[in-house]
Amino acid sequence: MNPILNSLLQKLENTPSALYQKDFLLTWEKTHGELETILAVAEALKNLRDNNISANCFDSGLAISQFRDNSTRTRFSFASAANLLGLAVQDLDEGKSQIAHGETVRETSAMISFLSDIIGIRDDMFLGAGNAYMREVGAALDEAFADGVLPQRPGIINLQCDIDHPTQSMADLLHLKTVFGSLEQLKGKKIAMTWAYSPSYGKPLSVPQGIIGLMTRFGMQVDLAFPEGYGLIPEVVELAGKQAKESGGRFRVVNSMEAAFKDADIVYPKSWAPFHVMQRRTELLRASDHEGLKGLEKECLANNARFRNWECTEEKMKLTKEGKALYMHCLPADISSVSCKEGEVEASVFERYRVPLYKQAGYKPYIIAAMMLTNRFENPSTLIQKMISDKKNRVL
Amino acid sequence: MNPILNSLLQKLENTPSALYQKDFLLTWEKTHGELETILAVAEALKNLRDNNISANCFDSGLAISQFRDNSTRTRFSFASAANLLGLAVQDLDEGKSQIAHGETVRETSAMISFLSDIIGIRDDMFLGAGNAYMREVGAALDEAFADGVLPQRPGIINLQCDIDHPTQSMADLLHLKTVFGSLEQLKGKKIAMTWAYSPSYGKPLSVPQGIIGLMTRFGMQVDLAFPEGYGLIPEVVELAGKQAKESGGRFRVVNSMEAAFKDADIVYPKSWAPFHVMQRRTELLRASDHEGLKGLEKECLANNARFRNWECTEEKMKLTKEGKALYMHCLPADISSVSCKEGEVEASVFERYRVPLYKQAGYKPYIIAAMMLTNRFENPSTLIQKMISDKKNRVL
Amino acid sequence: MNPILNSLLQKLENTPSALYQKDFLLTWEKTHGELETILAVAEALKNLRDNNISANCFDSGLAISQFRDNSTRTRFSFASAANLLGLAVQDLDEGKSQIAHGETVRETSAMISFLSDIIGIRDDMFLGAGNAYMREVGAALDEAFADGVLPQRPGIINLQCDIDHPTQSMADLLHLKTVFGSLEQLKGKKIAMTWAYSPSYGKPLSVPQGIIGLMTRFGMQVDLAFPEGYGLIPEVVELAGKQAKESGGRFRVVNSMEAAFKDADIVYPKSWAPFHVMQRRTELLRASDHEGLKGLEKECLANNARFRNWECTEEKMKLTKEGKALYMHCLPADISSVSCKEGEVEASVFERYRVPLYKQAGYKPYIIAAMMLTNRFENPSTLIQKMISDKKNRVL
Repeated sequence: MNPILNSLLQKLENTPSALYQKDFLLTWEKTHGELETILAVAEALKNLRDNNISANCFDSGLAISQFRDNSTRTRFSFASAANLLGLAVQDLDEGKSQIAHGETVRETSAMISFLSDIIGIRDDMFLGAGNAYMREVGAALDEAFADGVLPQRPGIINLQCDIDHPTQSMADLLHLKTVFGSLEQLKGKKIAMTWAYSPSYGKPLSVPQGIIGLMTRFGMQVDLAFPEGYGLIPEVVELAGKQAKESGGRFRVVNSMEAAFKDADIVYPKSWAPFHVMQRRTELLRASDHEGLKGLEKECLANNARFRNWECTEEKMKLTKEGKALYMHCLPADISSVSCKEGEVEASVFERYRVPLYKQAGYKPYIIAAMMLTNRFENPSTLIQKMISDKKNRVL
Repeated sequence: MNPILNSLLQKLENTPSALYQKDFLLTWEKTHGELETILAVAEALKNLRDNNISANCFDSGLAISQFRDNSTRTRFSFASAANLLGLAVQDLDEGKSQIAHGETVRETSAMISFLSDIIGIRDDMFLGAGNAYMREVGAALDEAFADGVLPQRPGIINLQCDIDHPTQSMADLLHLKTVFGSLEQLKGKKIAMTWAYSPSYGKPLSVPQGIIGLMTRFGMQVDLAFPEGYGLIPEVVELAGKQAKESGGRFRVVNSMEAAFKDADIVYPKSWAPFHVMQRRTELLRASDHEGLKGLEKECLANNARFRNWECTEEKMKLTKEGKALYMHCLPADISSVSCKEGEVEASVFERYRVPLYKQAGYKPYIIAAMMLTNRFENPSTLIQKMISDKKNRVL
Repeated sequence: MNPILNSLLQKLENTPSALYQKDFLLTWEKTHGELETILAVAEALKNLRDNNISANCFDSGLAISQFRDNSTRTRFSFASAANLLGLAVQDLDEGKSQIAHGETVRETSAMISFLSDIIGIRDDMFLGAGNAYMREVGAALDEAFADGVLPQRPGIINLQCDIDHPTQSMADLLHLKTVFGSLEQLKGKKIAMTWAYSPSYGKPLSVPQGIIGLMTRFGMQVDLAFPEGYGLIPEVVELAGKQAKESGGRFRVVNSMEAAFKDADIVYPKSWAPFHVMQRRTELLRASDHEGLKGLEKECLANNARFRNWECTEEKMKLTKEGKALYMHCLPADISSVSCKEGEVEASVFERYRVPLYKQAGYKPYIIAAMMLTNRFENPSTLIQKMISDKKNRVL
C-alpha cells in the first residue's frame, strides 16, 4: 500500500466520527473530527482513482439530484461522485414531474426514495427556504423510514442552499490543506473573504457564509470585507466570530478590500447580493412580481456600480503576504475584460491562478463522494482497506 | 434460504407462465398464473433487496423510457427497477429528438433498440391512441427482429395508457395480497372503485379501468360507482362483468359513493374525466384547438362541481365494513383543505391511511422489475435461486 | 473462439494503429490502418454482444455527451456504446447549465472532465464553428492535463460537425464492407453521393462531405452530384479528389443525379443546403437575425423547388448497375408521399431498402464504442481477447 493511503487510513481509524446515516447540511453541525474524516476519505478516493483502483461499493442504487437552480460543475461533481461509488444518477426535474402541481414535499420525498441511497439538493434561490426545504425532506424521510415505508433512509447532501455551500467550502478546505501541507499549517494563516464587484446581481450568500463558517474553525485569521449594506445573514457572522475565538483564530469584519488583503495568505474575492436585498428578492420571487424584480435589479446594479473599485487587481494583490497570497474562487468568476467589462478580478490575476483554481474545483467530486460514502458506510476505513486489497481495476 | 423466499420460489416453479418475450400491455391479456408469477417475482426481488442481496442480472443494457405525459413516481419506479437489475435508463424525450419532425414510429422504434432490452412507455393523453401506439411500437420491433435488424427484441412495458395502468394495478394487487394475507383471502372481499370530486379535469381513465379489469379476476365483489355521465370505456366495463362471473365474484355499477362504500373492505375513490369528455378532448388536442379545450375544461369543471359531495369523508367511511375499509389511491390525491379546497378525500381519512398508501406505492418499482425480469428470462425461479446462492452484496 | 472473432483479432494484431489517446474528429486525419482497426473493433464488439459476452471494460467512468443540435439516433448510439463498455452517460445540456452565461469553453471543458473518460460532441449548426469548437475543447483538455488539473485526458469523439460526420461515415463503411464482403471488394465500385430534393432547408453538409472524404480512400469510383449552387466546402471536395487519386479510385463532380446513378453500385441521395447558404445562415444565426433567417429560408425553399426532379425514383434506380445499386441514407429520409409530399426518395425504393438501411444504422453504436475503446486502450486486441477468455455473460 502506498504511504499516503496508509497515513489516511490511520487518520481515519483514529478519528472519532458519527457521519453514518447523518445528513450533511451545514459544516458547523459537524465535529472537527468529522470534517477531517470527510477530507481523509476524499483524499483516499482520489488516490485510488489516480491509481486506477475501483472504488465501487454499490452494486446498484440511485443517487437522486434535485437542482432548483442552474448548475454545471456541481451537477457533474455529483454525477462523478455517484458513478465513482457505483450509484446511478436520477434527476428529479420539477419541470418534468407533477411536483409543481400541488404534490407535497412529504409525499414526493417518500415516493422517490424506495430504492435510493442518496439525495443531493441545490436550493439557493429563496432566503430562509433552501436549507429549511432540505430539513423538510429529511423529516419526511425519517418518518417514512420509521413507518416502514422505506427499507433504508437515504442520506441528504446539501449541494448549496441559502445558508451554506458545504461541498464547495470543504473542497476549498481540501485545496488549502493540500497547498499549505496540513490543517495544522492553516493556523494563524490569514484569509480574506471579500465582496467583489460584479455587473450582475442576486448571487447567493452561501459561498462567503460557507467560507467564514468553516475557516474560522481552523485557527485562521479570517477577515470578511464588504461595502456598507452588503452584509451576510447575521447569525452566520456571529457564529464565525464565536468559532474563531474557540479555535484560537480571529474573525473581523472590515469595510475595504485593501484592509482584508493586507498581509493575507489567501484571498477569496467574490460578489454577492446584500442580505436585505436577498430578503426582498425572495418576497418578490414568491409573489412572482416581475416588475418588482426588475426594479430591484436596477436599483441593485446601480448600487453595485458605486463599488466598481472592489476588484481584485494586481495592485491590491501586492498588499498580501509577500504579494503572493493564494487567490481562490468558486468559479465561474467575472473576469474584467474577459467575461465582462469590469468584474471581480483583473484578468492577469485570474490567469496566474488558473491552475490552482481548477485544482480547487477538482476536489469537489471527491468531497461529495466522501459525503456519500460516510453517510452509507459506518466504517470507511475498513471499506477503503477492502478496496485496496481487492485492487479491482477501474479501467480494465 | 429464508422461508418467504423459499415459498415464493416453490410458487414460481409450480406456476405455468409464458411471460418470456411477451409485452406487458394489459393485465387481462395475461393468465392468472402469469399475474401470480409477476407478484411472486416482485416479492422475491423486494426480499432480496431488503436483505442487501444483489439482483443484478444484466451486465449492461438499456431500459428506454418514453413519457408522453408528466410523471414523478412512475419515472422513479422505472429507473429504480432498471437499476436494480443492472440496466441503464435512457430517456426518449421527444422534445430533444427529431420524432416530432415527421420521423415514423416504425423507424424510431428500430433505431433506439439496437442495444436495448426494455422499453417502458407512458401514453395516456389520447383516448384510443396510447395502447395502440404501444402495439405499433411492438409490431415495428417484431418486424425489425424478424428482419435481422435487431439482435434481440426489446420487451415493452405499459407505464400507463388510455385503457390500462398495469404497473399501478399490479402494485395495488400486491398491496392487497400483503394486507389481506393472500390472493385467496381476497375472494368475497368487497372493493369500491368510485369516482370522486376533484377541482381539476381530464384525469385519465386508466386507473379505474385497470382496477376493475384486474380485481374482478380474484373473486372479489367489485362495485364501480360514478355520477351520471362519468362512465368508463364500455368494453372494459363489459369485460369486468364477464371476469367477475368467471372468477366467482361480482361486478356492479352503482350511482352513489355511499352504495359502493356500504360494507366495503376496500375503497378506491379517485377522480376521472367522463369517457365522452376524453373523446372530445382527444379530438381537440389532436386539432390543437386551444379555445375548444378551454371551453371544454370550463364546461367540465362546472359539471364536476355538481358532484362535490362525492368526497371520501369520515362519515362515508363509517359505511364500510366495521368502518375500517382499507383506503387506496394511486397518488397524488386531491386532499380537501390540503392540496385543494374541496377534493377527493377528507384530510383526516387520508392522514389515517398515509402509511399504507405509501407502502402501496412502494410496490411499483418491484412490479416493474418483475415485468422486466420475466420478459427477459425464461426461468425466473432459476435466476432468483442463482441470486440467492451467489449472495453478492448490493451495498458492499 | 469463433472464426470471425479470430480473424478480427489477427487483423487487429497486424494493423499498426495510433488511435490511443487521440481524438476522433475527421476520418481523413486517420491512417488507413487506423480506420481498419475501428472497423475490426466494432465488428468484434458486435460479435461479442450477439453472443451474450460482456464487453464491460470500465468499472466506472463518465461518457459526456453534448448535443448542440437535436438528435435521436446518435444520442441513443452514444448511450448504447458507453453502456456497452461500462461508462455512464452524463449529458451536458447548455439549457440547464451556466455555460450560456459567459463561462468560457476552456473552463467548462476542464470542469466536466475530472472523472470523465470520453466526451462526445455534436455541433453542426454553424459553418466554420463546429469542428473548431471540438478542437478548442481538445486544447483546453490538453492544457488541463499537462497542468495536472486532470488525472487523465478524456478523448473527444465528433458526433457530427460542420465538416465531417465520422461516426456516420464509418458506420456506412462497415455496412458497405459487410454487404460487399471486404474493403478490398470496394475497389472499383461506384458510389453516387448525390444531392436530393427536400421540402426543408438548412440540412448540414457533414454527411456528403463525410462520405466523399472517406470513400475516396478505398479505390472507389466516387461521383458527387448536385444542382448548380449546391456545392460543398471546397477544401473537402479538393481533398476527395486527391485521395481518390492516391487510392487508385476516381472522384468526379457531376451535375445530374442521372449521371451519378449511371452504373453505380451504391447510391446515397440526400438533401443538403448550399455551402454559401450555410455561410449566410451561420452569420444570421450568430446575429440572432430571425427576420433574415426567415427570408433566407423562403429564398432557399424557392430555389430547392427548382430541383424537385432530384428524387431517387424507381426510374432512376434502373440506371444503376443491373438496376440493383445499394440505396443508402443516414436517416431519417424525406420519403415522397410518406413523410412529405415530394422528397428525396420514392416510397417504393425506400421500402425495398428498409432492412439494409436499418442495418446500416445499427453499426453506429459499435463504431462509437470502437472509437471509445481505441481511445482508452492501447492494445484493443489484448483487451478483446481478455473479454473472450473471461466470457462473462452480458445477460446472466
